[in-house]
Amino acid sequence: MKLVLAGAQHFHMYHLLDYVQETGKAVFAGVYDDDRNVLQEISDKYGVPKYDDLDEMLQTCQPDVVACFAKPSTRGKVIAKCLGAGVSVLADKPPVLNLEELHDLKKVVSGMSGPKFTVLLSERYNPPVRTLKRIVDDGEIGDIVNFTAFRPHKMKKSERPDWFFRRQDYGGILVDLAIHDVDIFHWITGRKILEVTAHAGNFTVPEYPEFEDNGQIIFRADGGVTGLIKVDWLAPSAHPTHGDCRYFITGTKGTIEVKTGGDIGTTGGTITVCTETKPPYSVTLDRVESDLYGDFFAAIKDNAEPAISMKDVFEAMQVVLAARDAADDNCIISLE
Amino acid sequence: MKLVLAGAQHFHMYHLLDYVQETGKAVFAGVYDDDRNVLQEISDKYGVPKYDDLDEMLQTCQPDVVACFAKPSTRGKVIAKCLGAGVSVLADKPPVLNLEELHDLKKVVSGMSGPKFTVLLSERYNPPVRTLKRIVDDGEIGDIVNFTAFRPHKMKKSERPDWFFRRQDYGGILVDLAIHDVDIFHWITGRKILEVTAHAGNFTVPEYPEFEDNGQIIFRADGGVTGLIKVDWLAPSAHPTHGDCRYFITGTKGTIEVKTGGDIGTTGGTITVCTETKPPYSVTLDRVESDLYGDFFAAIKDNAEPAISMKDVFEAMQVVLAARDAADDNCIISLE
Repeated sequence: MKLVLAGAQHFHMYHLLDYVQETGKAVFAGVYDDDRNVLQEISDKYGVPKYDDLDEMLQTCQPDVVACFAKPSTRGKVIAKCLGAGVSVLADKPPVLNLEELHDLKKVVSGMSGPKFTVLLSERYNPPVRTLKRIVDDGEIGDIVNFTAFRPHKMKKSERPDWFFRRQDYGGILVDLAIHDVDIFHWITGRKILEVTAHAGNFTVPEYPEFEDNGQIIFRADGGVTGLIKVDWLAPSAHPTHGDCRYFITGTKGTIEVKTGGDIGTTGGTITVCTETKPPYSVTLDRVESDLYGDFFAAIKDNAEPAISMKDVFEAMQVVLAARDAADDNCIISLE
Repeated sequence: MKLVLAGAQHFHMYHLLDYVQETGKAVFAGVYDDDRNVLQEISDKYGVPKYDDLDEMLQTCQPDVVACFAKPSTRGKVIAKCLGAGVSVLADKPPVLNLEELHDLKKVVSGMSGPKFTVLLSERYNPPVRTLKRIVDDGEIGDIVNFTAFRPHKMKKSERPDWFFRRQDYGGILVDLAIHDVDIFHWITGRKILEVTAHAGNFTVPEYPEFEDNGQIIFRADGGVTGLIKVDWLAPSAHPTHGDCRYFITGTKGTIEVKTGGDIGTTGGTITVCTETKPPYSVTLDRVESDLYGDFFAAIKDNAEPAISMKDVFEAMQVVLAARDAADDNCIISLE
């Protein structure tokens, strides 16, 4: 499996590149970015050829898979170009920043069966989230009534690139962070979100008035299931993880609280379940035998749909884009 | 202090009556209810005269204070009548069930300076909530950005009267339960809620289709502060308290999580704070020297405004009634 990097603007890429080096499951064969400093840094660090032209890299390297960690505002185009060229793509989230880009991407992949596409919705492989899904699937808490997610992250202001603070380049907090929780809701419940309302605001970064350090979404899904998602860049610096992320699931026969830890590669987490017959008890986390990257490489080899499918990605994107619009326009948006 | 009971339909009344007996801070002098069985039961249990006419009780007993635990749908009229007769009233929440009753009550008290009125918003005296307010007031977490409240309670279906399951008599879950959290938000932050959206639904009581076993509110307050409130009657029977109620406060400089326990008179609870400089630490709960009943009796004696003022009660009612309408009509309601 030959892998190249198209855009190297988010630290999430190190997790993948280190994985590739450690497991040998792919060969890192080239890097493209339009920022010469970034390009030089990655090229030096991993000893791979650098390209300042995407087409040239695709043609020269003939990769099996492109990993896209481009600036969010350029991701959509990069992904569409790679998929259009018949190469599979693993992209950081969010893969696009607006409905137009989403539409363009859908057009590119329409009817396509060769190249595979997935997005780094890493919570799907987080042991506490995996365990949560298993407990829900086991019927332990009955039917799901409400799904609440908290996703606070540390801002680490001084380490962030300029684009992080600009709406046009970054896309906004609801699109960047809430996509995880929307996807997990869809995955855990099998329900489709039908309607969203949201807010976003900025309390701590006055020098970038477009930036949002906090946001919240309320939604209604099919079957009358409801949910709340709270995201922010206000996790206190002293917190031991990247943020005290949680899920709270209310079922007809019990409740589950999940502490998931912070970000990609975070270990730890806890699950507490309470039911009609059992007072709160902790559940040992399931071992997760597979991983997102390995599963995706296997899907490419097997010409199979990735575990986090295009449909999953597009549905989650649709919801977070609607949430951002709802916050901007202060309205309820229907997705039916 | 002579106290009578006008309406004896909610078990919260036992907390007050026991308090009165134990402390001797008031003399329980009579009970009125339109249900003869209920009347007989309380009269026998506490050895007080029973009345099936409210006016007759007021005239005969000449009370200093009326405690109103009438069926929610009749509370508004009972409270208005007592206040109109110049007698102070301590009512269970919610004191009214619609805007018309709220308007009528406001009209009765307009310009009134003698009789006092308060509502059993008991969380104000709950040690963890009191401690939360002190920590916020101390500036430990900076300015408040987001306020999230969970209020799950046990349904105890077999112990509930019929009216509990009918919207017309009960008022709905958002009005009954969320009033606590709206009031605590106002109290903790000093912010006014300007806009609400909400949902409510019923998963577990199909025989009463009007009943709601769960609800959620999203709101925006002045200064751009936002919040989420989740309420339900789905706390698992096996949970050690009446429900795992929580507050999560996100500030510009830290976060606070509060576990408050279940209902009036619940003891226990915990507070965890995390700031920019201190990893998560537990705070010893403040001792609460005063209590809601004692403070209210003192306010009557001193002709002073009760700690939970009429204005506080009316503002919280306005928000929860708007939330119920927002849920019913699937819209955003402005309170500006």
